[in-house]
This record gives sequence, structure tokens and C-alpha cells, in this order.
Amino acid sequence: MSEDPRFGLARHVSLPGPLRLDGGVLLSPVEIAYETYGTLNADASNAILLCHALTGDQHVASAHPVTGKPGWWVRMVGPGKPIDPERHFIVCANVLGSCMGSSGPATINPATGAPWGMSFPVITIRDMVRAQAMLLDHLGIETLQAVVGGSMGGMQAVSWPATFPERVRAAVVIASTARHTAQNIAFHEVGRQAVMADPKWRGGAYYEAGDPPAAGLAVARMAAHITYLSEAGLTEKFGRRLQARPDRPDGAISFGFDADFQIESYLRHQGISFVDRFDANSYLYITRAMDYFDLAGEHGGQLANAFRATKARFCLVSFDTDWLYPTAESRAIVHALNAAGAPVSFVELSSPYGHDAFLLEAPEMNRVVNGFLRAGE
Amino acid sequence: MSEDPRFGLARHVSLPGPLRLDGGVLLSPVEIAYETYGTLNADASNAILLCHALTGDQHVASAHPVTGKPGWWVRMVGPGKPIDPERHFIVCANVLGSCMGSSGPATINPATGAPWGMSFPVITIRDMVRAQAMLLDHLGIETLQAVVGGSMGGMQAVSWPATFPERVRAAVVIASTARHTAQNIAFHEVGRQAVMADPKWRGGAYYEAGDPPAAGLAVARMAAHITYLSEAGLTEKFGRRLQARPDRPDGAISFGFDADFQIESYLRHQGISFVDRFDANSYLYITRAMDYFDLAGEHGGQLANAFRATKARFCLVSFDTDWLYPTAESRAIVHALNAAGAPVSFVELSSPYGHDAFLLEAPEMNRVVNGFLRAGE
Repeated sequence: MSEDPRFGLARHVSLPGPLRLDGGVLLSPVEIAYETYGTLNADASNAILLCHALTGDQHVASAHPVTGKPGWWVRMVGPGKPIDPERHFIVCANVLGSCMGSSGPATINPATGAPWGMSFPVITIRDMVRAQAMLLDHLGIETLQAVVGGSMGGMQAVSWPATFPERVRAAVVIASTARHTAQNIAFHEVGRQAVMADPKWRGGAYYEAGDPPAAGLAVARMAAHITYLSEAGLTEKFGRRLQARPDRPDGAISFGFDADFQIESYLRHQGISFVDRFDANSYLYITRAMDYFDLAGEHGGQLANAFRATKARFCLVSFDTDWLYPTAESRAIVHALNAAGAPVSFVELSSPYGHDAFLLEAPEMNRVVNGFLRAGE
Repeated sequence: MSEDPRFGLARHVSLPGPLRLDGGVLLSPVEIAYETYGTLNADASNAILLCHALTGDQHVASAHPVTGKPGWWVRMVGPGKPIDPERHFIVCANVLGSCMGSSGPATINPATGAPWGMSFPVITIRDMVRAQAMLLDHLGIETLQAVVGGSMGGMQAVSWPATFPERVRAAVVIASTARHTAQNIAFHEVGRQAVMADPKWRGGAYYEAGDPPAAGLAVARMAAHITYLSEAGLTEKFGRRLQARPDRPDGAISFGFDADFQIESYLRHQGISFVDRFDANSYLYITRAMDYFDLAGEHGGQLANAFRATKARFCLVSFDTDWLYPTAESRAIVHALNAAGAPVSFVELSSPYGHDAFLLEAPEMNRVVNGFLRAGE
């Protein structure tokens, strides 16, 4: 992490709160780990809030402290990119409930001096948004030039103008949805049951033993990962190709239970590497928040009602092979925005990569986001 | 089980074999548990072999001995149904590797006197077919009027004329495929990893302790179950509806990790009830056989080559909302049959229920199968 603000400053703040959560609990203090890129201008009008996905974090354009990998959205955020620290003051905060420094099950409950574990209050997407608003208060940002996010980040981005209609001038919602469907909930429930079935989970009290439910969390990650990729993308990338081995350089089926197929090896790697960087309880809490997400439900059952007070412009982007949050979910948001009279631009982009497309090289997505943001500057 | 042969006779045979498996192992003896319905006619020309799916069994039209539920295909098989014990001699055998009486990891390895566990040889779909052929030899059936199956049963049905081209006059392949795709393999690998991650799995040696890896198998079943249903079907059946509780008759989110949503409760039930009737090791072996299935690969990489020697007529049925084995997979088989000059009829049926549609009430499917079978009588 350089001291040049264009390249990201890692920060942490403990806000006294209390934050009243949707579940009724008052959370205090509220710890928020975040990064900023660029400089807030004199009238504090150039702030862009970036919202991360389920297993994302604040390291949007800086190296991940555990894996050393580049930030998760370096293709979108950086000098010369659509979200540009030369122009924008960029804020990305680890969401409430996560495990990269913000309040969550792995942080210390001040009342007990021990990690919260499963006594951490269950949170919602709107609670994440409220915590972000507290951070903006702390940073002296009254109004966002834009809030931008993909997947769960898009849920926050669409929730922002609904929750704080005066504080957002534009929202960019990518590969996302205004509610979790039965199938979305089903996949998350499988993941939670996989974690909870692991005896090492111990009802969430595994921190002190230092032996987390890695096997269960890896299975959860594997199941979820399938939903991030398209069938066609998997076929293109892996098909039925076999894993090369020292004794079988061309690959061959083993008539056993090793990872014969490349897709097996890939998925196992996804599972194993995930547990090094993510907390199992956070996985439970954040998936729960996503399953609870139903923006229409928060507004009397009519999605359009969520947008009646906002003055924000909206930009929605979906990908044609995304079967986790398919285009129809974005279109439902567009229809509601139309009904509410809110300005919205919408594009479905073509990609073979399914839901994950928003994290990959997607020049058209960059052009869309760039054009949309510049139109408001 | 009545003694009237129309209503099913439960049988078991131990064939000396040996059966040479695709993996090179000689299996002996080969235990086969099966049911028959109806009577074999004098020239043994009215036999229909029914092939069951991954978690199915020989109880196609008789009550399941553990659950007491009706047979899995009573809508298709029975007096007055398309497959009719008044006309046909119907054979349905538990597949090799399964756990309802046929040789599998839970049966006794005669060399050790203990259950095979993971020392049972890894098998293929073609091995299942070969074991069925041994059973037909035993029953004095040289040629099948038809082989019929859905899902993994369809893999056997399409493999039959490729493996024994002289022994099948017709094949009905429903909601199936000629090979497992990367996405198919991926879902199965998640299930296997869930089983193997359960400490009670003990490398497959859990039989003597009598304490099987139920939690892991339940997670595997939950993940698989999602693939059997369509997104639209899940939305129709469950949507975001909440589970009623004594203290919340209308349902309400609990801000906790109970099954708030009906879909969660349903999936948990599917997982828990499955472990009462299925062996975890069998689940590993059968999913492996399905993942290995690649009928083109068995025939020099050209699917049409699989059918060059057969005289059979084919009937293919797919369902438009089946995303496990989508219509494109059936169409690939149809194209190969066309290329091989084999007679084939194909229909894609409309259903909201996804892959599971073939097990549900589907009058059109029954009409198609009935017409196809009668055309050969």
C-alpha cells in the first residue's frame, strides 16, 4: 500500500453508533475497514462508493493482504479506468458481517471480550448500506456522485437510493437483482448446511481452537462457484478434459475418486483456497443477508415504491449467460424504475462467462459505466 | 408384494460371473436384486427392461421397502399404463454399485467377509448394462422388446443398443444425455466432496460402526436436488414464501439461521429423508459412473459410431425446463442416430418442473411412450 492516495489507502474506523439493525438490535461500536483512492474535492461532490460482492472486500484495486492477488476490480478502478482516482474520491468498505476488518462474527464483542460468533446479530443488505452511510458521515460526504456494485454489491447499490434517496446522484447496478429467488436461497442454504454439518463449526465457536470448519466451507464455496459460471463457459474452459498427472501426462481416468477431470481439480482448488481467506461464520451471515434481500418487500410489496423519492439516475447491466441473477431480474428493476419515473439506462451484455463476467475483462461494461458516470460530471 | 406377477415379484440372484468391468477388475459373484412384472411370453419377445436413475431402485411400481412410498414410476408402469404387465414382461434391476441388494460398496466382499466399502471396483454405466445383460441371460431373454429409462436410466437405455446391438429392438431415452458435461461433473463433485468431508465417512469404512456420514450425504442430496428442479418451478412452488411456525402462523423472518423460507425447509427435508434410504458410498460410486459416461468417447469420439451396428428404433424425450440434461443433449443423440441411419423419433415436451418432470404426471410423455412401444408390437 503506497502513500500516494491514487493507489489506495487502507483505513479503519470504529464508529460509536449505535447502528439500529433491521433485526432490532443496536450495534455499537461499528467497526469499518475501508480503502480510499483519490482525493475528495472541495465541495465533496466527487465521491464514488464501491460495494463488494459476497466474498469480496475493500481491496478493490490494491493487493489482497492474504493472497497477494491484485484487487478484485482493477479492470474498472484505477488511473485511466472508468472509476478513476484522478477524478473520483473512491471509497470501498468491507461490508458489515464480513471478515476483513469490519464488524462481523469474527470480531470481538465488547460485552464479552470474545469473538461474537453466532451471537453476532443477523444483518441485512440495508444494514450494510446504513453502516456505509455512517462511514460517509464520518468522511464528510453528504451525497455520493455514484454508488456502484456488482452481484451483492449491486444489491447495495440499488438499495442505496431506496434507503437514502437524498444522498445518491447515480447508481450503477451490475449483474444483480432486487430480491433473492427460491433457487438463489436454495444454493445458499446448501452452503450454510455444508458449513454447519462440519463438526469443526462447533456452533460457530471455533475461533479459540483455531481450527475452523474448512472442509464444510470449501464444499459451500464449490457449490456456489458453479453458479458463478455458465454451462457453456465451463464446457469451453474445461469440457471433459482430464487432469494431467506425472504418471499420465495426457490424462486418463483413474477408476477412482481422485480429481480425474480438470473441472474437479479446479473446483477443489476454489474450495481449498477460499478457506484461507474467508471466515465460515461470515459466509453464513452474508448469505443470510442476501437471502433476506427483497427490496420490494421492504417497500410494501411494490418495487417501484422503493424509488419514488429518489432523484438518482440508474444504470443497469446484466450478462446474457448469468443464470444466478439473469437479465430478467435486472429488467424487473428497470420496469420498476420506469414506473417510478426514475431515469435509467439498461444494457444486457453478451459474455460466455456467466455471473462472473462482471469481474472479468469486459470492455463494453467499462464503456457503459464510463459513459454513464461522465454524463453526470 | 403380492404373488400376482402383474403387481411385481421381488427377486434376487447371485450370478457367478465373472463380470469383466471397464476398469479391468473381474467381479464375482454379481449380486442382482430385481423385480419383474407380468409374464414372459413363449418366444420371450415381450421383455422390457426398465433402467432406474441415480437414486432409484428396482421398485419401479411396488412400494419402497424403507419409505413405504409407491414405486418411482407408477405413472408409466402398471395395468393400463404404457408399460403394462398385461402385455409386457417387465424387468427392473437395481444397478451395479447401488444399495438395494445388487453388488455395491455396502455388500460383502467374499474375499474378506466384510463390506467392500471403497475397495469395491469403480464401475461405469456400461458395466451396469453388462450386469443387466447377465441377468437377462439368466432369465432366458435374448432380445429386449425395449429398454426404457430416464436420467441415468436413459444413459443405460442409450448405452444398451451401443453395447449389445443385437439384443435390443427399441430404446426409449428420456431426459438424458450421451455424456456428462463439465457442469454435470461439477455438481457431482460437490456432492462427493460433501460426503468425503464428513468425518463419519471414515474413508468409506463406516458400516461396522453403524454411523454413516448422514450430514455429508444430506448436503450432497440438497445440492443435487436443486439441479432436478427448474428455477421457474421453484419460484412457482416456493417463491420467497415463509415457513409457518407455531409462534408465527403466517411466517416471518427470524433474523436467525432456522429454515425461514419454505424452500429451505423443503431442501432440508430432502436431504434428511434421503440418508435413511441410501448408502453414501453408493452415492459416490454411481455419481462417478455418470461422470465417466461419454458414449462417443467409448466409440472413437464419434457418437454416431455407437449406433452403426444396432437395428433398434429409438425414442428420445426431453423437457424444455430441464437444465441438468437440456434438450440440446437429446438433440445431439438424435443427430448421431440420424447420421448412423437409425430410426428415431424425438419430442421436446413442455413442463414447468425441470429434470424431475419425467417422474411426474406427464400425459404427453405417456402418449409418446405408449405410441412408440405399440408401433413395435
